[in-house]
Amino acid sequence: MTENRVAVFRKENFNAAHRLHNPDWSDEKNARIFGKCNNPHYHGHNYDLIVQVTGAVDPETGYVFDMKILSDLIKEQVLDRFDHKNLNLDTREFRNLNPSAENIAIVIYKLLRDKIDTTLDLKIRLYETERNFVEYPVH
Amino acid sequence: MTENRVAVFRKENFNAAHRLHNPDWSDEKNARIFGKCNNPHYHGHNYDLIVQVTGAVDPETGYVFDMKILSDLIKEQVLDRFDHKNLNLDTREFRNLNPSAENIAIVIYKLLRDKIDTTLDLKIRLYETERNFVEYPVH
Amino acid sequence: MTENRVAVFRKENFNAAHRLHNPDWSDEKNARIFGKCNNPHYHGHNYDLIVQVTGAVDPETGYVFDMKILSDLIKEQVLDRFDHKNLNLDTREFRNLNPSAENIAIVIYKLLRDKIDTTLDLKIRLYETERNFVEYPVH
Amino acid sequence: MTENRVAVFRKENFNAAHRLHNPDWSDEKNARIFGKCNNPHYHGHNYDLIVQVTGAVDPETGYVFDMKILSDLIKEQVLDRFDHKNLNLDTREFRNLNPSAENIAIVIYKLLRDKIDTTLDLKIRLYETERNFVEYPVH
Amino acid sequence: MTENRVAVFRKENFNAAHRLHNPDWSDEKNARIFGKCNNPHYHGHNYDLIVQVTGAVDPETGYVFDMKILSDLIKEQVLDRFDHKNLNLDTREFRNLNPSAENIAIVIYKLLRDKIDTTLDLKIRLYETERNFVEYPVH
Amino acid sequence: MTENRVAVFRKENFNAAHRLHNPDWSDEKNARIFGKCNNPHYHGHNYDLIVQVTGAVDPETGYVFDMKILSDLIKEQVLDRFDHKNLNLDTREFRNLNPSAENIAIVIYKLLRDKIDTTLDLKIRLYETERNFVEYPVH
Repeated sequence: MTENRVAVFRKENFNAAHRLHNPDWSDEKNARIFGKCNNPHYHGHNYDLIVQVTGAVDPETGYVFDMKILSDLIKEQVLDRFDHKNLNLDTREFRNLNPSAENIAIVIYKLLRDKIDTTLDLKIRLYETERNFVEYPVH
Repeated sequence: MTENRVAVFRKENFNAAHRLHNPDWSDEKNARIFGKCNNPHYHGHNYDLIVQVTGAVDPETGYVFDMKILSDLIKEQVLDRFDHKNLNLDTREFRNLNPSAENIAIVIYKLLRDKIDTTLDLKIRLYETERNFVEYPVH
Repeated sequence: MTENRVAVFRKENFNAAHRLHNPDWSDEKNARIFGKCNNPHYHGHNYDLIVQVTGAVDPETGYVFDMKILSDLIKEQVLDRFDHKNLNLDTREFRNLNPSAENIAIVIYKLLRDKIDTTLDLKIRLYETERNFVEYPVH
Repeated sequence: MTENRVAVFRKENFNAAHRLHNPDWSDEKNARIFGKCNNPHYHGHNYDLIVQVTGAVDPETGYVFDMKILSDLIKEQVLDRFDHKNLNLDTREFRNLNPSAENIAIVIYKLLRDKIDTTLDLKIRLYETERNFVEYPVH
Repeated sequence: MTENRVAVFRKENFNAAHRLHNPDWSDEKNARIFGKCNNPHYHGHNYDLIVQVTGAVDPETGYVFDMKILSDLIKEQVLDRFDHKNLNLDTREFRNLNPSAENIAIVIYKLLRDKIDTTLDLKIRLYETERNFVEYPVH
Repeated sequence: MTENRVAVFRKENFNAAHRLHNPDWSDEKNARIFGKCNNPHYHGHNYDLIVQVTGAVDPETGYVFDMKILSDLIKEQVLDRFDHKNLNLDTREFRNLNPSAENIAIVIYKLLRDKIDTTLDLKIRLYETERNFVEYPVH
């Protein structure tokens, strides 16, 4: 029964440099498709990350998931990896994967999915800017 | 047919004191599980509450639900009950229920569900802080 | 398979005057139902618009939809039509349709739905104020 | 002595239609100078208003100025006058004064200045949009 | 010479319970003056604190004040003292001082002023809610 | 006379990569002083920029400064120079100047000061993150 299923959300943030680039394309095509996001010297963002965990409320604690533990998990799995980094150069995850907001959200989902019990649903919302953001997974 | 179903949202807020505590546990276990949220003298929050009502648009008004009426209903059912209160001591709802964000959202849902026609769906989002928030119900 | 479906969101805004009014009703009934929103000389809002496009990530770009193209499409289809306009007097869409937030969201949905490939899902969130907002479509 | 001087701020908001127009100019000059803000049928904004009152802290209350009284005063002097109104047509203040953000701030200052003891300093910040705002007076 | 004087700001937040009460007054007068803020069982807030430090830019670092050091100082002097506390019961500072936003700002100023070199100016902005906030000192 | 002096503010934003580094120091000292901000591969931010212009209101327009012209000036002088750039590598201004928030604000001030009539005062507020920001000049 799902009567006591609640979604809980934790917001964190990290600051990173990145560049959109497809190595299979010519420089000209990269510049045309990615525009100023293709700048060879990188640019950067303050990424706002919202992690949503959905499950039953534990009657003993009133919690779906302890927010302190969730915050620590995000710090360990995501912020320590990406904060104040160059996503293209400093991370294993984006060495061969274009660090678009879509791909960053999918990578963060996989990093956290491994660490959270599968009885709990997980969703990622990632703000690249206040005006551009993404969500994964969707149905 | 659902072609004209729209969700409408109203945001309100209230300020309250609370303490997380399970009377079936020892003081030591309460302190270990709930940390600083277990402070015996309480702490407090500015709660932001978003009430979502989903249904068909009335062709005469262009409304799903009159936002003035929804705002008044939230004031009467939620704000008058919880604003500037100590949730543990001053409210009937949390005398025997731990006032976690999850439980507060479920309580608010039930208070409003009784007052809103069942042809309309209802969902609650509650921000305990800008970084910690919950949603109920979820599928 | 839907494993790489991501939702992408673009936020834009426009400023417009409007008035809620049903021409089939008496002035007295309009005033009673719509209150100060019925002011014959109009009032206005800064509308925040969030357009959500959901689909598969293109492995070549890492994009679901190029945000620059989405932004340009919103400007062309929505902002050029409604920004700094009187919705009731200056637009074809609301000459015979009450410009409630619900109806504005449905109109924006239809304007954009025609221009976005049907393999992509589309959803509109429209903020009339920070406290009143709507979403369309919903299931 | 000024050791206990504190500034207190209260934020309120109102929604209004307006149009920028100088009746001494030709239509062509009005359109050229004011651009889309000159639209003859008006457009509108959600105005955010921050009223700052500066003075000594009363040792008995710990207050510079009771925020409930300040909020009521703003409602009575400003919101009842301008909320859900057409500033050009519905208000005495802007019948012969161009309702630019600058002029609206000066008018609000004068309306409140009359009602607040002169031992207290007063300053107005008015947001026409999140990106355009003004402050009055300045030194 | 002041040509390179810059103000730097650091935002932190804490959650606390409090109650406005003057022990020299009757219960009736306390209730009349402080209204629901006088609730004997306390209520609470998410306080947003902005600390402003003004001084010359160090040409070697490009800093007025290292923001990491400022953040640590605020944590040590303010957050460890007030976060998740009942200001009236759990703190020495407000045992005999009414914890109005004005008084909290003055107390925070004094706590930090002692720890920051006097060649640097210091100012505190404290948000009790998004709509009520204070600043100290002012000229 | 200063009775009609008003401050007007325009908010813009740009996204850039940077690195804090002093070439006169050892790598070890750079790492110690600047911490993760010294990452050799850069990191990045969404910078929010607020430009304040203060002067007399023109009685013909009701403007201190046309916000459209101010926005265009910021785009031309600041955004075209810094948006989606690596401040250390791609700009003349920070080739030999550490791109701390303080220094970026001073540089932006100088770029705009040259283009705005000296009868008008100018002030820059720059947000590196929501929690770290600076203002220049200050008295």
